Amino acid sequence: MLIKNVSIIESGQLQPGRDILIDGGKITNLGRDLMDESDDEPIDGRGKLAIPGLINGHTHLAMTLLRGYADDMELMPWLQEKIWPLEAKITEEDVFWGVKLGCLEQIRFGITCYSDMYYFPDTTAQATKEMGLRAFISGVVFDMKPELLAQVDPFIRRWKGDDLITPAVGPHAAYTCSEETLQKAKEIADRHDAMIHIHLSETREEVDGFLLSKGKSPVEYLDSLGLLNSRLAAVHCVWISPEDCYLLAERKANVVSCTESNLKLTSGIAPLNTMMKAGINVCLGTDGASSNNNLSIFEEMKTTAIAQKNAYHTPADFSAEQIWHMATENASRAFGLNLGLRPGAFADLALIDLKKPWFWPQSNIISHLVYSMAGGVDTTIVNGKVLMQSGVIPGEEEILEKAQERFLRLTS
Amino acid sequence: MLIKNVSIIESGQLQPGRDILIDGGKITNLGRDLMDESDDEPIDGRGKLAIPGLINGHTHLAMTLLRGYADDMELMPWLQEKIWPLEAKITEEDVFWGVKLGCLEQIRFGITCYSDMYYFPDTTAQATKEMGLRAFISGVVFDMKPELLAQVDPFIRRWKGDDLITPAVGPHAAYTCSEETLQKAKEIADRHDAMIHIHLSETREEVDGFLLSKGKSPVEYLDSLGLLNSRLAAVHCVWISPEDCYLLAERKANVVSCTESNLKLTSGIAPLNTMMKAGINVCLGTDGASSNNNLSIFEEMKTTAIAQKNAYHTPADFSAEQIWHMATENASRAFGLNLGLRPGAFADLALIDLKKPWFWPQSNIISHLVYSMAGGVDTTIVNGKVLMQSGVIPGEEEILEKAQERFLRLTS
Repeated sequence: MLIKNVSIIESGQLQPGRDILIDGGKITNLGRDLMDESDDEPIDGRGKLAIPGLINGHTHLAMTLLRGYADDMELMPWLQEKIWPLEAKITEEDVFWGVKLGCLEQIRFGITCYSDMYYFPDTTAQATKEMGLRAFISGVVFDMKPELLAQVDPFIRRWKGDDLITPAVGPHAAYTCSEETLQKAKEIADRHDAMIHIHLSETREEVDGFLLSKGKSPVEYLDSLGLLNSRLAAVHCVWISPEDCYLLAERKANVVSCTESNLKLTSGIAPLNTMMKAGINVCLGTDGASSNNNLSIFEEMKTTAIAQKNAYHTPADFSAEQIWHMATENASRAFGLNLGLRPGAFADLALIDLKKPWFWPQSNIISHLVYSMAGGVDTTIVNGKVLMQSGVIPGEEEILEKAQERFLRLTS
Repeated sequence: MLIKNVSIIESGQLQPGRDILIDGGKITNLGRDLMDESDDEPIDGRGKLAIPGLINGHTHLAMTLLRGYADDMELMPWLQEKIWPLEAKITEEDVFWGVKLGCLEQIRFGITCYSDMYYFPDTTAQATKEMGLRAFISGVVFDMKPELLAQVDPFIRRWKGDDLITPAVGPHAAYTCSEETLQKAKEIADRHDAMIHIHLSETREEVDGFLLSKGKSPVEYLDSLGLLNSRLAAVHCVWISPEDCYLLAERKANVVSCTESNLKLTSGIAPLNTMMKAGINVCLGTDGASSNNNLSIFEEMKTTAIAQKNAYHTPADFSAEQIWHMATENASRAFGLNLGLRPGAFADLALIDLKKPWFWPQSNIISHLVYSMAGGVDTTIVNGKVLMQSGVIPGEEEILEKAQERFLRLTS
C-alpha cells in the first residue's frame, strides 16, 4: 500500500510531498517518489497530514454503551443507583456492541491502539479484532467477584501471540483487591510477561484510607508487593506525593493520566509537573465514556495542557510539544509499541484533512494538533489495514443501531 | 425555506420528524407536515438535530490570524516579544482575512453570532457581513492609543440599524482606560443604547492593583462610574468576590466566562457557583484564537462544566442542562437576541449530523452536546440564509489561502 504526497511533521514543521510505503503491517519506506509493487490503489495524501496512530492509555470500552446514561451525580449515588445495577445486567452481547461502538469512535479520533479494563475480556478482544484495532485488554479483577481472578490466566493463554490483541492483567485497584489477589495478579503477569493495568491513587479518600490503615500510600503499598515495574500502567495517580513520584520513576512504572475524567468526577488534578521532574513516563487516557464522555485523545491533550498550566500557574510549561510527546512517544514506550512514521514501525497511522480552518494559518502544526484540533481525521490505518477512508467506516450504521438496541434493552 | 423531518430537543428529549419553516430571516412555523410556498429546495433534516445557533460571547476574531504563532509563554514576554510587535504591523487587509477565517471556523462550530473587540471594527463588520454572520462588534478603546476613542461614535453611527451587525463600545479594561475614557465610553454607549464590552477582573494582579490603589475592586470601581447595567458584557470575571457577584447581579450586568483561555493563560477559574447563586446572567466565550486556540463553544461548554465541577468539588452541579442553558438562553438574554426554535425567532440555527458515534447511544442528547460532541455540524443558517450546507462553505479555500498569505506577510 502506498500513501502518496502526504504531509508529515519533521522537527515540528509540516513537510509536504512525502510517500509512505506499507507492506505486511509495517511501514517499509518513507520518502519521495516511492513505488508500490502491489496492485493496491494508492491513497492520495495531498492536503493531508500523516501522524502515528494515537494510543488511548485507559478506557472501559464496553461502557461506551452507558454514555450519557448517568451524568452530573455524586460518586456513590452514581455507582449505587445507576452504574452497578446496570452492570449487573450486562451480557456478552452488550459488551460486544459497546466495544464496537467505542472502536468506531476511536477510529474517528485517529486512535489505533487502546488499553482496556472490563468484564468479558474475550468478547472485548473479539469485537476489537473484528474492528481491526490494536488493543491491550485486561479482564477486570476484584474481590467482590472472586471468580474473575481464575479467568485471567486462561484468557491470557487464549490471546497471547495475537497480532492485534495483547492480553493483560487488570486488578481494579489496591482498595478493591486484597493483598492475596494483588499477589496472584502479579504472579500471572510475571508468568506471561504481561502488563498490569490498575487504577491507582485516583481519589484523596483512597489515599487517606491507605495512609491511615497501612501507614503507606497506595503507591508504596503496591511497591511492597512488587507490582511497580515497567510492565505497570498505573492509571490516574491524582493524589500522589513527590516521594510516590520518585518511587514510580525509579521502578520505571508508567502513569496514564485521565484529566477529563478526573475533572468531571471532581477527583482533582494529577501532579504531572512533579511526575515529569521525577522522570516518570506519563501518557494519556480518556477513561470510559460514562465518565468523560467521549474517547478523544486530542481533546484529552488540550484539557491536560491547559488544566496543568493553570493548576501550577506555569503558562510556559506543559507546552504543545511536551503534551504531543506524552500522547505519542510516551504512550508507545508505555505499551512497548514500535510506533512512529519510520521504516520498520507498525503501519498504525491516521491521515488528517488539513483543509479545516482550525489548522490555519499553517503556523505551528503541533500547537494546532494539541490546542485547535476539532475534527478532520480522514483515514485511519492499523497494522497496514485501512479501517476508515475519507471518513467512511464500513458497517458503521449497523453498529450504531445495535448499540442503541442493547442500550434500550439494558435500561428497560 | 423549509427544513423537513429534522429532530429537535423538547423537554430534554430528541423529537424527530419536525419541519421548520423560515421566511424573511425569521422562523415562521415549527411543526409536522408543513408546506413551503417558496420555490426553495427543502433541506432534508433526516438524521439531523436542529439547535438554535450558538453565540460566542467574547472573541478578537482578527487574531485568528495569530493562531499558534506564540503559545506556551509567560504573559509579559508573550505580549512584548510576540503579540504587540505583530499587532503594530496589522493592517485592515490582515484584519479582513483574519475575521473571515474566524467566521469560517465559527460557521463550522454552529456559531451564528459572536461578540468582538479589536482594532478596525469597520473592517471586522464588513468581513462579517460578507460571511453572513450576526455580530456585536466593538472597536477596542484604551489610553495608549487615544485616537481610538474618537472613532467609536462614527463607527456606531455607520452600523446602527444594520440587520446583522450591532455596533458596541469596547473599552479594553479598567486598568488600560482612565476614568475619563471610561466615562466617555459610557456616554457614547448611553447615547446609542449600545452595549459595553469590557475585560473585567481577569487576573489576580489586576484586582490586587485596584484594591491597593483605589480601595475598590474593579467591579466596584466600574459601578462607581455607572458602567454596570444590563447593556454590559463583562468578560472573564475570574477574580471577583461574593460582594462583586451580588453587585453585578443587582445591576443586571452580564458575565462572559472564557474558561479555556483562563486556563491556558493560567488566570484561574471563575467563581461561577457564586455568580449563579447571586443570579448573574452568565454566558460563554472562546476568547481569541491566540489564547485558546480555537473558537468552539461546544469545547468551551465541556471544559467549563468539568473545570467548575472539579474546582468546587461539586460533581452534581454545572450539569449538562445548566451549561447548555448558559450557552443558549443566557447568551440570547445577554445580547438581547430573539433566538430559539420557535415561530418569531431569528432563523439562526445549526443542523447537526446525529450519525456520529459520539451521539450514541441516543440516551441524553443534552449530555451528548455538552460532553461528547466532537464534530458533525452539517448546516449553519443565519438570518434565514444558508452559510454552510452538508459541510460545504462556498469560498472556503480562498479564505484559507488569503489568511496564510497575510500571516506570512505579518511574520516575515
